[in-house]
Amino acid sequence: MLSFENDYTEGAHEKILQRLLGTNLEKLPGYGNDPYCESAKAKIREACECPQADISFLVGGTQTNAVVIDALLKSYEGVVAAETGHVNVHEAGAIEFTGHKVLEIPQTGGKISADTLDKYLQDFWADANHEHMVFPGMVYISHPTEYGTLYSRRELKDISAVCANFGIPLYLDGARLGYGLMSNATDVTLPMISEYCDVFYIGGTKVGALCGEAVVFTKRNMPPHFLTVIKQHGALLAKGRLLGIQFDTLFTDGLYFTISKHAIDMAEIMKDGLRRKNCSFAWESPTNQQFIILQNSVMEELQKDVAFGFWEKAGDEHTIVRLATSWATREADISSLIELL
Amino acid sequence: MLSFENDYTEGAHEKILQRLLGTNLEKLPGYGNDPYCESAKAKIREACECPQADISFLVGGTQTNAVVIDALLKSYEGVVAAETGHVNVHEAGAIEFTGHKVLEIPQTGGKISADTLDKYLQDFWADANHEHMVFPGMVYISHPTEYGTLYSRRELKDISAVCANFGIPLYLDGARLGYGLMSNATDVTLPMISEYCDVFYIGGTKVGALCGEAVVFTKRNMPPHFLTVIKQHGALLAKGRLLGIQFDTLFTDGLYFTISKHAIDMAEIMKDGLRRKNCSFAWESPTNQQFIILQNSVMEELQKDVAFGFWEKAGDEHTIVRLATSWATREADISSLIELL
Amino acid sequence: MLSFENDYTEGAHEKILQRLLGTNLEKLPGYGNDPYCESAKAKIREACECPQADISFLVGGTQTNAVVIDALLKSYEGVVAAETGHVNVHEAGAIEFTGHKVLEIPQTGGKISADTLDKYLQDFWADANHEHMVFPGMVYISHPTEYGTLYSRRELKDISAVCANFGIPLYLDGARLGYGLMSNATDVTLPMISEYCDVFYIGGTKVGALCGEAVVFTKRNMPPHFLTVIKQHGALLAKGRLLGIQFDTLFTDGLYFTISKHAIDMAEIMKDGLRRKNCSFAWESPTNQQFIILQNSVMEELQKDVAFGFWEKAGDEHTIVRLATSWATREADISSLIELL
Amino acid sequence: MLSFENDYTEGAHEKILQRLLGTNLEKLPGYGNDPYCESAKAKIREACECPQADISFLVGGTQTNAVVIDALLKSYEGVVAAETGHVNVHEAGAIEFTGHKVLEIPQTGGKISADTLDKYLQDFWADANHEHMVFPGMVYISHPTEYGTLYSRRELKDISAVCANFGIPLYLDGARLGYGLMSNATDVTLPMISEYCDVFYIGGTKVGALCGEAVVFTKRNMPPHFLTVIKQHGALLAKGRLLGIQFDTLFTDGLYFTISKHAIDMAEIMKDGLRRKNCSFAWESPTNQQFIILQNSVMEELQKDVAFGFWEKAGDEHTIVRLATSWATREADISSLIELL
Repeated sequence: MLSFENDYTEGAHEKILQRLLGTNLEKLPGYGNDPYCESAKAKIREACECPQADISFLVGGTQTNAVVIDALLKSYEGVVAAETGHVNVHEAGAIEFTGHKVLEIPQTGGKISADTLDKYLQDFWADANHEHMVFPGMVYISHPTEYGTLYSRRELKDISAVCANFGIPLYLDGARLGYGLMSNATDVTLPMISEYCDVFYIGGTKVGALCGEAVVFTKRNMPPHFLTVIKQHGALLAKGRLLGIQFDTLFTDGLYFTISKHAIDMAEIMKDGLRRKNCSFAWESPTNQQFIILQNSVMEELQKDVAFGFWEKAGDEHTIVRLATSWATREADISSLIELL
Repeated sequence: MLSFENDYTEGAHEKILQRLLGTNLEKLPGYGNDPYCESAKAKIREACECPQADISFLVGGTQTNAVVIDALLKSYEGVVAAETGHVNVHEAGAIEFTGHKVLEIPQTGGKISADTLDKYLQDFWADANHEHMVFPGMVYISHPTEYGTLYSRRELKDISAVCANFGIPLYLDGARLGYGLMSNATDVTLPMISEYCDVFYIGGTKVGALCGEAVVFTKRNMPPHFLTVIKQHGALLAKGRLLGIQFDTLFTDGLYFTISKHAIDMAEIMKDGLRRKNCSFAWESPTNQQFIILQNSVMEELQKDVAFGFWEKAGDEHTIVRLATSWATREADISSLIELL
Repeated sequence: MLSFENDYTEGAHEKILQRLLGTNLEKLPGYGNDPYCESAKAKIREACECPQADISFLVGGTQTNAVVIDALLKSYEGVVAAETGHVNVHEAGAIEFTGHKVLEIPQTGGKISADTLDKYLQDFWADANHEHMVFPGMVYISHPTEYGTLYSRRELKDISAVCANFGIPLYLDGARLGYGLMSNATDVTLPMISEYCDVFYIGGTKVGALCGEAVVFTKRNMPPHFLTVIKQHGALLAKGRLLGIQFDTLFTDGLYFTISKHAIDMAEIMKDGLRRKNCSFAWESPTNQQFIILQNSVMEELQKDVAFGFWEKAGDEHTIVRLATSWATREADISSLIELL
Repeated sequence: MLSFENDYTEGAHEKILQRLLGTNLEKLPGYGNDPYCESAKAKIREACECPQADISFLVGGTQTNAVVIDALLKSYEGVVAAETGHVNVHEAGAIEFTGHKVLEIPQTGGKISADTLDKYLQDFWADANHEHMVFPGMVYISHPTEYGTLYSRRELKDISAVCANFGIPLYLDGARLGYGLMSNATDVTLPMISEYCDVFYIGGTKVGALCGEAVVFTKRNMPPHFLTVIKQHGALLAKGRLLGIQFDTLFTDGLYFTISKHAIDMAEIMKDGLRRKNCSFAWESPTNQQFIILQNSVMEELQKDVAFGFWEKAGDEHTIVRLATSWATREADISSLIELL
């Protein structure tokens, strides 16, 4: 059985596990106060070219979104997001659980535009009744988006400018950030993200870690007593080393980027193969998630040998299906997939 | 430098890490739907002699307490706990963050008594104004307690009976459960805990796992859609295997009990040595945490060579200090400690 | 200066104030346990033809929505509402403050349809990922809607059937219920609302009371310890008599309906006048709120003499404006308004 | 039947009702933007000798406590209060509902001391684990307390100094403030309260209003967008006039003080009478609530003719009973009570 179901079907990159083994019996302080966390932070700061960055490690994506958004918003504020944004759809209401509304705005291919955002914010402040509404207190984007798409440098810069103009932070969900940075079709780098975003996270879970996301506050804007806020959310690990060691490994010798590049290479090979088989793509994705339109009968046949993700129906006779590569994808599996089609 | 600071200074038991390595490239479903989670649950059910138990794996102790308590309480209910209970003091308000009050009752050595509890609950319901107060909706105990002490079977049974009498669940925080079960001075077994408690958790983080706690609902009383509740709390791991594999290993061939027994053996050796050195114990603890009273000058001297936990001042010239053993403690280190004293 | 700004510009119906005066020095129990609350409840039950109804009095609309929705939803559930619904737009996030998401669905003229609702609920349950999403736990509609429109009996019945089919309660926000019931263009009566809705509220604030809304649970489904939930929300009045006396007065000799009918009569006269002046209506409203499209220059001129509500821009040169009548509107003021136009 | 059950058994002072009648048909803006609210605020500022005070009107005491505390605290902070404080015991968990812990400290007669508070705060900051605990973010006191007792000027000043020293606001719950200010045994004035407290409220519900409490921020420290926070809590009245008119009346010609003085005079007459009858007082109260110890048989006899409040048992054969006077108490009723004893 082949699997292209998602990018978290395997455990962790071998180097991470070896490192956990190698350091296992060292007696280390808890709660992230160990030298591996420190070292990982230093390496991330360097990769971001952002020496003043404050970095914290959290366990998973929904947790990270909830903690960061709740920590940055005032009680009467909500977070602006694409109606398709992960925080708005697939996080079981984790944001609302913390008391904050997700303020939906329209999107295209999972992306919001600076213009749409600007209009939304202008309209809010112009509304005579805005004191009876939820204040837009920050902006959430994902990069890559849930649709595998990417913001261009220009788009990111423009959105950032709108946020700055309204004095609210821009937060980038980088659950799959590595795959975005290593795309062949991007002009966005990690230092640019550090420049344009007030806070973002570098996804580990989907990019080779057992678990873990690195939150980066780029503007000396980490909320006070953030460790206590993390604990209050039930998100503080006693053995913080588990996250520190993983990110230290991922950011040693560019491992994070190397393995992300591998996923992109695999995705490109997959795309070529799919095109050769005359597959229709639901939309163009330059990252590790590919979305193709299959006739239902073909899909059912394929399911017997391949695990993949259902995305949505496309009319009565077709379905959009997601095929994901990852740091762990083997080229042989892609060949087998193409052959099967 | 010796360390008896706590029971989470090392990584994980070697067998866990080897198992993570051995299964690393298996492609497994996410969110706890993998066979290792299933297998671990089956083994825990067996160890609990509770075939109907519903089990979920969570990442850490505070998170587990917050998720379980919030999931079981109605909005107008609070959780009754010893004033020294972990949920009341050292969890950064994680329970209140979910909207619920911790209802303090008096304790002795970290333990509540059935009588105190019964009186509290009687008084609540007899109070003409109780509709203006927070309803006691469940009872929280820890075993071992924060003071290393243990409930006897009789005590547990009596508390359980009071809870049943008032129709509210009894929840046992077993962050260090292994050390309690393997104590030489206990008559409480895991099946008894399953019988007397409506829900409890088997601590992994402090008993040999990298992270992870196993929540056990014993009375077919797991809240509906508990997975969604977990996700809403930001507590759902994409790679649920990380927890399943660890608990499957811990509950294979009794590893959890073997390594807990080791910690107890080490604690007993330490106690003997301390007694020989005429150390005063702050109170009797039959588990892996020992609390001794040191003259401040002695304590300062000792600190140069040994890491330990400060508990509290005992007058102006003495301090209560905590020395913890664990699954990873080496006997040689205890000898060195005793020598130093 | 004329005012048609809204339906809460005056104090209360004279009879209410007289009744408050007449009962003022009676010594009454607090928290709603007085005979006036009891009497009011009995009269409302009768008007609803719903002898088993459980009724509670709350102070204002947003408070009522937050308390009822929070009390009925499980923690992992949200409330389905029109994207234009009051709870989604103009309540400062009061629903999310209680931890629950408002699940938007499309609307027409402020109304949702049974079909749209059914499709939404079908899709939710069919979604393989629905356990990662907020569960639709109840449905919110307003009647009249924010646009002054009304559901027909058929529409209400169909929505009710969809809710029953999915086992979730239907909640009707009746902030302006009197104006809906007395409309010349409705086939919906109070007993029908009691039949089709699981819970609804009869608005007082906008229909002649100083403050106050009467929540009606129609299916023996008032949440347990609802008084405590109300108190927890800061919504319990010590002098519950203030609400009981008002509703008792409103439901004596049909006062609530008489004064609502007056507002409708005034609205009809206003509509006739506006039509004679060739005003364009933004949409047809059969209740006390009328929405007309004014050229911006006309609007600015009118503002000098008349207070009204801005609704939204209609292109660059026109604005939609709201004119509201109420229980207190005088016909002479309408004549003056029409003259001015 | 006589009633000394509490201070909210009657409606409102006659002048308030007359004023509501007199202004009833004035068309006024909603949400507190009417001239009566403005006028009331000006008069309160003057009475407080605090020209920079920001004032908001809320509906009831629990609501006020929840809104003010939630608005001032950061998410990781709790409110320090006497273990007997109203927010800790009799508000159905309304504070915890907003996510914040009530941090109990010991009390005497319902009062906390500057020393106890100082020690608590010192200990918190000295605790090596304080980042894992709830931060004390403000201090709550009530004046009069739940026991009818009063802080002296010195005590208030000292508590205020401790708060200032730790940089956290002091909040005074003045549900019965008038009765405290008019006590014969106080050296505390309203301007002093404005000086020593960062925020407090002037209780209306228990001092002659139908409902309503006036929150006074004294140090230009009203939280930004406080109106939106109020709305989010479901605490914003559409007809804000209801509160403005009441407070404007209460602060015209010192009515608030006159009627409070009346309650104190009545309490003094009652105390004299009780003393003549050799009643034992549970403790000395200089305000409108008197607490006496009755033999259970006497209490049961008295109950037939007098309504009063049960406070608590005093051993097996006695009960502490509360007798409250108010702005509406008639001297004849007190004579009847004394005669009955």
